[in-house]
Amino acid sequence: MTTTAKPLRADAERNRQAIICAAGSVFAKEGTSVTLERIAAEAGVGVGTIYRRFASVTELVAVVLEEKMRRYADRTEEAAARAAEEPWQAFCDAVLFMLEQQATDLAFSDVIIAGGSVSDLFDAEVRRALRASIQLVNQARKAGVIRPDFDHSDLLMIQHANAGLVRGTHRTAPEAWRRFADYMLQSFRNSGGPLSDPPDAWLRAQAKQP
Amino acid sequence: MTTTAKPLRADAERNRQAIICAAGSVFAKEGTSVTLERIAAEAGVGVGTIYRRFASVTELVAVVLEEKMRRYADRTEEAAARAAEEPWQAFCDAVLFMLEQQATDLAFSDVIIAGGSVSDLFDAEVRRALRASIQLVNQARKAGVIRPDFDHSDLLMIQHANAGLVRGTHRTAPEAWRRFADYMLQSFRNSGGPLSDPPDAWLRAQAKQP
Repeated sequence: MTTTAKPLRADAERNRQAIICAAGSVFAKEGTSVTLERIAAEAGVGVGTIYRRFASVTELVAVVLEEKMRRYADRTEEAAARAAEEPWQAFCDAVLFMLEQQATDLAFSDVIIAGGSVSDLFDAEVRRALRASIQLVNQARKAGVIRPDFDHSDLLMIQHANAGLVRGTHRTAPEAWRRFADYMLQSFRNSGGPLSDPPDAWLRAQAKQP
Repeated sequence: MTTTAKPLRADAERNRQAIICAAGSVFAKEGTSVTLERIAAEAGVGVGTIYRRFASVTELVAVVLEEKMRRYADRTEEAAARAAEEPWQAFCDAVLFMLEQQATDLAFSDVIIAGGSVSDLFDAEVRRALRASIQLVNQARKAGVIRPDFDHSDLLMIQHANAGLVRGTHRTAPEAWRRFADYMLQSFRNSGGPLSDPPDAWLRAQAKQP
């Protein structure tokens, strides 16, 4: 029994990974409003096979986005750790990674903008990424590589702006976000004059952060 | 006959203006996917009164957006004319007017991003605004008040970005666009390093302009 069971389990795991991978690819290109049939076709399995492992598209969305957010939090923590040595490079890396993730993954872009809860695990990863990004910004500001009036909420500002740019250009000019990123990073580094205050609502939300 | 007809015509014109004004206000707040009933309620007239003057919401949308685009083209032409004397102020005024129009008018923001045709008159005003903005950018660059690598398509870039920012913040942080505008204008003025190239698709579209 045990000797035949093992290959079966390996098969099942491969199937599960193929479904998650296909779902991730479909969500990235088309957002999360897709059918299980669409994912089954992409994965090359039957809809029944998906239903045996996932109750709904919602459950698959959670699994895919949890993994995305885990990688994003990892990357932000790495940048925060690197900021002690190379604050400007670490800051740029984190911002560019964030903008590129938005540009290449419609589902990820939508969920970080909407700010909704996908699952407890996802929320925990969001908090981890947020803590790391606050640490990163504080270190970069302390090192003097970003302007003194840079506010952590400016990252939220460019996420919203980049979401609009990506939505408007992903079919016709999918690299448009790079030039936008250059402009923003240069403006974050070098003060060219006073800035309007960050929105009150964002400052209040920040004050509530741990 | 003539003496009684005159007040009637004035009444009809007042009604027409009230409907256009109400429609403009509803479109600005809610976009253009609204019913004639919604506009009738805002204008304080019956749906029948609207139907006697406008065949559909689409016709009302055209009238409202033609007027918006006419004002926008006027304003851009004024900025282009002023650029000979005060190139930086003229450039800032035109950019800030554009971003503020987007922030305060959802319908206008959607239509300039989508780039669709509303009516022949609307299209003519779009072309007039485009010609004026090209002239404005050329003068500002020639005067050295914006960086040499600024490209006219960068205005399209910030329209897309601002559309996303406005969409994401108009309920919670309706002034967020002002800080974004400050960052962008500073980055347009002062070079902080090289930029990625503008998207090929946008450069090709520019080459076709008169």
